[in-house]
Amino acid sequence: MVIEIQISVSGQGLHEITREIQRRVADAEMDAGLCTLFLRHTSASLTIQENADPSARRDLEAWLNRLVPENDPLYTHTSEGPDDMPSHIKAILTATSLTIPILQGRLALGTWQGIYLWEHRRRTGSRNLVLHLCP
Amino acid sequence: MVIEIQISVSGQGLHEITREIQRRVADAEMDAGLCTLFLRHTSASLTIQENADPSARRDLEAWLNRLVPENDPLYTHTSEGPDDMPSHIKAILTATSLTIPILQGRLALGTWQGIYLWEHRRRTGSRNLVLHLCP
Amino acid sequence: MVIEIQISVSGQGLHEITREIQRRVADAEMDAGLCTLFLRHTSASLTIQENADPSARRDLEAWLNRLVPENDPLYTHTSEGPDDMPSHIKAILTATSLTIPILQGRLALGTWQGIYLWEHRRRTGSRNLVLHLCP
Repeated sequence: MVIEIQISVSGQGLHEITREIQRRVADAEMDAGLCTLFLRHTSASLTIQENADPSARRDLEAWLNRLVPENDPLYTHTSEGPDDMPSHIKAILTATSLTIPILQGRLALGTWQGIYLWEHRRRTGSRNLVLHLCP
Repeated sequence: MVIEIQISVSGQGLHEITREIQRRVADAEMDAGLCTLFLRHTSASLTIQENADPSARRDLEAWLNRLVPENDPLYTHTSEGPDDMPSHIKAILTATSLTIPILQGRLALGTWQGIYLWEHRRRTGSRNLVLHLCP
Repeated sequence: MVIEIQISVSGQGLHEITREIQRRVADAEMDAGLCTLFLRHTSASLTIQENADPSARRDLEAWLNRLVPENDPLYTHTSEGPDDMPSHIKAILTATSLTIPILQGRLALGTWQGIYLWEHRRRTGSRNLVLHLCP
């Protein structure tokens, strides 16, 4: 089963999508299986990270922004704005797709794991995901 | 088929799990298919790396420790110890899940590829994996 | 269905393989499903990146070469040449496998997404991929 999903984002940062994905998995009434998430963009990414303390996510964002700053003189691909080339670099360092097993009808996430769409651009709008479920 | 697996770890570093996973695949008696490994933690990760010369793994560990040191003044998420926030960062730079095709009843790894659980914390104990096999 | 594919590479850089993979998916005549690509090497990787402006790919390559330079005094694994250890590090920072859903008989890539084999060594020759398709 393949489902297209739109996710609203409001600027740079980690947007949690665990509940949205969990709901789609529950709707499929699949006891065991595999859930694949695929992001159709090259300037945002997917990640699984700690869902408890927001300070961990703020530090992830700050650390990655320091490693991949805007306005680096190395960049030649600058026509789409100062946040564009850093976004592509951040995307290759993180993930475009995630695969998560389904156990007893639910995503087999650990206690502290949440699924995040990591928006790397300063834009507000929506991003397109494709969800695949197999038994 | 979905199987839960516990892996013992003894401190930071790359712990090879190739044989353990290969054995589970053999038990499934599947000629061709796809094996997915998913780690239920946010301060450790999975990686596929050179299994021949241990110096390559030592250099990977040393390089990543230098890129993501402990006690960076940037960190605000410090309540769980100095090795906690670096572990989350290392986890987002590596992988939480791996997908490996099965060919002629075995994982289709290259000659020099081994599967590793990369423990980023200094802890000793066990980590939980979920293995999914599909034809 | 599992297929072995050989890809020719001519030195370091991002080699686009989208058409080759798209063709294999079309041949399988699968309306919906999941395509997994797995690279059987530890000194090259797979990535999905912007396929429009070549300057973005040149910047990705230049940025990663600066982050992971040759001849770093940290390296002890040096017997296979100065481009070997940087290649392993670049491989763990990017991806060894990609999973892409199939929608209406085609890979569900976004408008600007291309699939690339990222060769990290200076070698010319071929690399081995394994493609798995499931409904």
